[in-house]
Amino acid sequence: MSQPDKISPGPAYLDYSATSPLLPCVRARLHELIDLDYGNASALHSLGQFAKGIIEEARAEVARLINADPEEIIFTSGGSESNNTVTNIFSGQKIAVSTIEHPSVLEPAKAHANKIMLIPVNRDGRVDPVDIPPDADLVSVMLANNELGTLEPIRDIVKRCKTSKTYVHTDATQALGKIHIDVKDLDVDYLTISAHKIGGPIGIGALYIKKGSPFRPLIIGGHQENKRRAGTSNTLLIAGFGVAAKHVREQKTYRTYAEKIKPLRDQLRLRILAEIPYSSANTPEQGCLPNILNMSFRAAEGESIQLYLDAAGITISTGSACASGDLAPSHVLMAIRNDAEVAHSSIRFSLGLDTTEQDINKVMEVLPKIITYLQNISTINLGESHDK
Amino acid sequence: MSQPDKISPGPAYLDYSATSPLLPCVRARLHELIDLDYGNASALHSLGQFAKGIIEEARAEVARLINADPEEIIFTSGGSESNNTVTNIFSGQKIAVSTIEHPSVLEPAKAHANKIMLIPVNRDGRVDPVDIPPDADLVSVMLANNELGTLEPIRDIVKRCKTSKTYVHTDATQALGKIHIDVKDLDVDYLTISAHKIGGPIGIGALYIKKGSPFRPLIIGGHQENKRRAGTSNTLLIAGFGVAAKHVREQKTYRTYAEKIKPLRDQLRLRILAEIPYSSANTPEQGCLPNILNMSFRAAEGESIQLYLDAAGITISTGSACASGDLAPSHVLMAIRNDAEVAHSSIRFSLGLDTTEQDINKVMEVLPKIITYLQNISTINLGESHDK
Repeated sequence: MSQPDKISPGPAYLDYSATSPLLPCVRARLHELIDLDYGNASALHSLGQFAKGIIEEARAEVARLINADPEEIIFTSGGSESNNTVTNIFSGQKIAVSTIEHPSVLEPAKAHANKIMLIPVNRDGRVDPVDIPPDADLVSVMLANNELGTLEPIRDIVKRCKTSKTYVHTDATQALGKIHIDVKDLDVDYLTISAHKIGGPIGIGALYIKKGSPFRPLIIGGHQENKRRAGTSNTLLIAGFGVAAKHVREQKTYRTYAEKIKPLRDQLRLRILAEIPYSSANTPEQGCLPNILNMSFRAAEGESIQLYLDAAGITISTGSACASGDLAPSHVLMAIRNDAEVAHSSIRFSLGLDTTEQDINKVMEVLPKIITYLQNISTINLGESHDK
Repeated sequence: MSQPDKISPGPAYLDYSATSPLLPCVRARLHELIDLDYGNASALHSLGQFAKGIIEEARAEVARLINADPEEIIFTSGGSESNNTVTNIFSGQKIAVSTIEHPSVLEPAKAHANKIMLIPVNRDGRVDPVDIPPDADLVSVMLANNELGTLEPIRDIVKRCKTSKTYVHTDATQALGKIHIDVKDLDVDYLTISAHKIGGPIGIGALYIKKGSPFRPLIIGGHQENKRRAGTSNTLLIAGFGVAAKHVREQKTYRTYAEKIKPLRDQLRLRILAEIPYSSANTPEQGCLPNILNMSFRAAEGESIQLYLDAAGITISTGSACASGDLAPSHVLMAIRNDAEVAHSSIRFSLGLDTTEQDINKVMEVLPKIITYLQNISTINLGESHDK
């Protein structure tokens, strides 16, 4: 039997949740600024104030995208720093997090909390608000899970936390641009976002801090960001984030995701389940982001699938890029299926605004052959197993 | 008397220590990468590995510049994060810092140390190695001060610390590219550098960690940077840093600074002292970076001088950009002159590779008039004062 890597239907990028290509408007803005000379945005001279103007314009755009006030937004080096910043505020206190949080929430929470409380999730990866511990100082539950796409009931969580005066953080890194986000509606205290998941540059993120919520900077020793994040302001990437935020807001990308991308994702799901034996979906049918699809294939190892798809020009991930190189099974899949074999046999498709039906067809042209090939060379006897 | 802002000799940028314009080779590399599509550098697929290749090439270049091994280099969001990372390793321990460290060393050291020990400096802003406390767990003394340019005796400090098994960090942010830096020769355990002080992009820095020295990441929850700094790797800016590092090493810019820039700086110093009454130098004559000149002018407020120079097209700083907006006098000038009036009347010129004699002439065309104007409107009676 020939190896499936000989088939090349043409490139298809389906790893938007790991990082998204720069939007054309972002590329244009970056090109423009690279050729301009501006000063350190903290300086009082004209070149510094010029840079500061660029930053404040971008801050207003980022704030507008999530219906925040500009002074409630600080720029950070990305989602991981924003998440670490929030858990750091509650160092030495009681922190409750879902079991499927991103590691940049889970790990600092475990490292810095006086007491860490893990909130379970169901088979869909969803938290039940009744499981929120009433005595936590901070509850951190993501708006949508990065590996599954599952949406969490943040509004209900906030409602429960109101009575116990618990502060609520949500990591909205994956949700931004895919669904409509309004911080006043969600009523959270802290919300993490990142530029490169919406077609902005890698290396710039933001943290929403509701007026009056406790705050303590993670990186100190500078007056930048209204004394809330030290370090020379990253004018170039902040400007890129601003342009991306404006585009996402003006184009109402969440509608495009609902109307154009979700049907493609659902089509991919149905075709895989119908055409590939021993396949199963980890992403729930309802209540998830429109663009993520996590699937498992019995007796086919996720990394092998990824590499064969890659050889065929199709780019996908096995779970989170932040965990790449880790041999441990995904903590998210273990939380919902509790089966290391299933976890190791899963891959994540993540679609973007430029995804087309052709991309789905390309996947379905090669994926069944790859899975059959891997299942044939596997030592697992599929005759004896059954799809879980 | 007419205000001096009517005089415009043409633009002269003399704020390189706040931030340096991008080198042409860096601009070219950024333009190139902005138009390329690459993946998340943590991903195992081709587009991810392509990004990883760019990063590792840059890491090798940054390492080579300071004679480190590539695995001793981690990328951070900048000098402030690198400095915070080092002090965080020694949380709860005894930390000794000079009184004139950058706030991104001073503040986290004060916040996290079990005991903070302040090392005094002399009138030149220089630490005497005999003042290094023998019982510190970490000593952090900068390689060159950002406001004065004063070089610190790091080799001698390291020698003293060897006997007490104290780890040594040096913030080399301002020194990089201006003098030759060799971490094996300096023999420090940690060294902070930043791209934008050498013509690389703002928002990317590095930390050198000598093999075997203790380490604990500041931002956690991701396997990036060999598990030493979480967050999606900033391929674009890292690449820009690499190109800047290569340029600085290949061009031996420290020689250009010694041969071309230091004479210009010295010329500016002598002309100011000769042509402007009540002026004095805070930067020492010997043992300092070739490009920084900090001067005080009795009865003339630093911010006013900066704004009038700015109106005439000349860009300089009052001390550190990181402290802008702070009404307190510079802690560096207070440490060496202990006179708030002197501290408030100081400005910093910082020259770069593109500085010319013409720039110095432009300054000397307007600065004397600005100072005279400000001294005339000042309430301070210069007849009764004398240059300290």
